Amino acid sequence: MTANTGPLVTIERVHAARDVAEEVGLDLLVVTPGSDLRYLSGYHAHAMERLTALAVPRRGEPFLVVPRLEAPMVDAGPAGALGLEVLAWDETDDPFALLARAATGRLGSAPARVAVGSRTWAEHALGVQRALPGSALELAAPVLDRLRMVKTAAEVEELAAAGAAIDRVHARMGAFLRVGRTEAEVGADIAAAILAEGHVGVDFTIVGSGPNGASPHHELSGRVVEAGDLVVVDIGGELPSGYRSDCTRTYVVGGEPDAGTAEWYAVLQEAQRAAVASVRPGTTAEAVDAVARQVITDAGWGEQFIHRTGHGIGMDTHEAPYIVAGNELPLVPGMTFSVEPGIYHAGRCGARIEDIVVCTAEGVRSVNAGSRELVRLPG
Amino acid sequence: MTANTGPLVTIERVHAARDVAEEVGLDLLVVTPGSDLRYLSGYHAHAMERLTALAVPRRGEPFLVVPRLEAPMVDAGPAGALGLEVLAWDETDDPFALLARAATGRLGSAPARVAVGSRTWAEHALGVQRALPGSALELAAPVLDRLRMVKTAAEVEELAAAGAAIDRVHARMGAFLRVGRTEAEVGADIAAAILAEGHVGVDFTIVGSGPNGASPHHELSGRVVEAGDLVVVDIGGELPSGYRSDCTRTYVVGGEPDAGTAEWYAVLQEAQRAAVASVRPGTTAEAVDAVARQVITDAGWGEQFIHRTGHGIGMDTHEAPYIVAGNELPLVPGMTFSVEPGIYHAGRCGARIEDIVVCTAEGVRSVNAGSRELVRLPG
Repeated sequence: MTANTGPLVTIERVHAARDVAEEVGLDLLVVTPGSDLRYLSGYHAHAMERLTALAVPRRGEPFLVVPRLEAPMVDAGPAGALGLEVLAWDETDDPFALLARAATGRLGSAPARVAVGSRTWAEHALGVQRALPGSALELAAPVLDRLRMVKTAAEVEELAAAGAAIDRVHARMGAFLRVGRTEAEVGADIAAAILAEGHVGVDFTIVGSGPNGASPHHELSGRVVEAGDLVVVDIGGELPSGYRSDCTRTYVVGGEPDAGTAEWYAVLQEAQRAAVASVRPGTTAEAVDAVARQVITDAGWGEQFIHRTGHGIGMDTHEAPYIVAGNELPLVPGMTFSVEPGIYHAGRCGARIEDIVVCTAEGVRSVNAGSRELVRLPG
Repeated sequence: MTANTGPLVTIERVHAARDVAEEVGLDLLVVTPGSDLRYLSGYHAHAMERLTALAVPRRGEPFLVVPRLEAPMVDAGPAGALGLEVLAWDETDDPFALLARAATGRLGSAPARVAVGSRTWAEHALGVQRALPGSALELAAPVLDRLRMVKTAAEVEELAAAGAAIDRVHARMGAFLRVGRTEAEVGADIAAAILAEGHVGVDFTIVGSGPNGASPHHELSGRVVEAGDLVVVDIGGELPSGYRSDCTRTYVVGGEPDAGTAEWYAVLQEAQRAAVASVRPGTTAEAVDAVARQVITDAGWGEQFIHRTGHGIGMDTHEAPYIVAGNELPLVPGMTFSVEPGIYHAGRCGARIEDIVVCTAEGVRSVNAGSRELVRLPG
């Protein structure tokens, strides 16, 4: 599972995390397998019951705690090049006590404020807390989101490569999405195409045909695609570097949409266009949501737009910043997120249009291309 | 992602969890997406930032908290048949406050002892705690492991089906594992075979050839298999029901092992056989570990057996009971776990033999078949 994120990761990321921890008054960050760990150290480890953790005390050198079985994998991967001290533990050792001792040693006293990754398992978070009695446990998100939210140029290029790869899958949709096939059959072909187009993993394949399109998180079913169906296709995967794709297009298969559909779809398209166009430094996340929502509400479909407008994307498909009412975060260049309004008619059909965009100094760049029109497939 | 675990799941599991919570003095269990949730309710949900949780107060009716977007998926899946109340929340609601209010209402007062799943994300665990100030957070493992550890006959049959499926993959190994191919190429063929033999997902494909076999958690690399290599192949996947396979065989490819190898491999084989034979009700988990370790230590290879003897398996590949020194848990009929000693020669080669076994009233049953000999492949 050790994958090469190579030159994207440097020890500067760990040091930046330490600097922000110091600034916000956290004594110790503990980051376990998942995207936080991979982002900071390049170490792409399995999440499992045995504790693997990167510990970043506010003072002194950061260190890795790893099962001795896995120490060779750290050394062989990109994390091995960072020069982090590796504390290996044996099967009957207490890795939490090991971590607590080493952190206390570096700090000169036991840490009071200890923060763990948002997706750290409870058994590991509570294990750390138990080994540091008297410490208060909180989330490391204020530190890690702040770093991860703002992508470097190299990270943006990874997301652009992911976007181009998923665009190629959408461009082949006519070969997969045909009248008479089940959503599950279509989804299997899409999954194979996601891998064939350069991803190493398939994250999700949503094929919402006809009434299933009205459930935004519907995935696949045995429903057979019928002539004239609207079909929401929302797909994404993971590049070898760990960066993700996520793009939605809505198709009409083997028929023409009726006049009513064309009308509300045009509203959706305008909402998505306007929200993308509103992205620029200084605009807030919630303002982008409001732009999309206003267009749809003004046209009378506000009750049918039942989710937030978007989510950040990077090494996780969903990460900060969330494009949602209440999020007053001002956008800055390097933030990457989806803009994906939808209109859903329960029991009948739905449509969604999604691009991944980058906030730039000049305004906005979309990593996805391809038409945002309702795409006609012959069926 | 809603998969049918059908008749395996009944509301009795939720009620059993409530009974055990009452017995151990827990006021509230909170279980989030993952195998704990799927085991209790049949609901196979994506883990994501939006809170989905099954809440089981020690008194009153259990309930599900789900994003409104996903409520249709609950109703459509096996959890929909359990009659659990579903509390749906909208994008700008606080789902933790919703959960806290409902639990407090059922209990008549705020819960004091709140337990979360071992793999619940820290952001959800701490969100629950924040919404219930004054509560103490702990792990639900004492409740959930006690239930999940002891399989019903239907669950054992799922594990037996998984074992038979992975045995069929091992039986085809001669077609995949050949001199001149890379571990990655062999692994890709194995992954395809795991799916072809009835799994819906590939959990891991370890192909440790030559010196890579000495790292127990090595997965795949670009190393080319050479004539005479020992190759550790440890593979597993997930059935549609969510139950898992996990089986290791060691092969020698395109050559004969030298006399020394045959000698220490025979020790390993005897250790594995003796440990399996020692399984019966009343024996402790650590005693099974000790049996394997004693055989290997007596032959002088104790330092080369660098991991525990096994792990429980069910809807997670690794779950309780762990077969490790210090685990004094007595085995009872229905417990299912791996017995997988290994001998590792750093820088040179390794070997491991792994079967999944069931503790039965009569003693032990292996769900894997196939030779535990060093398997010769023509190369």
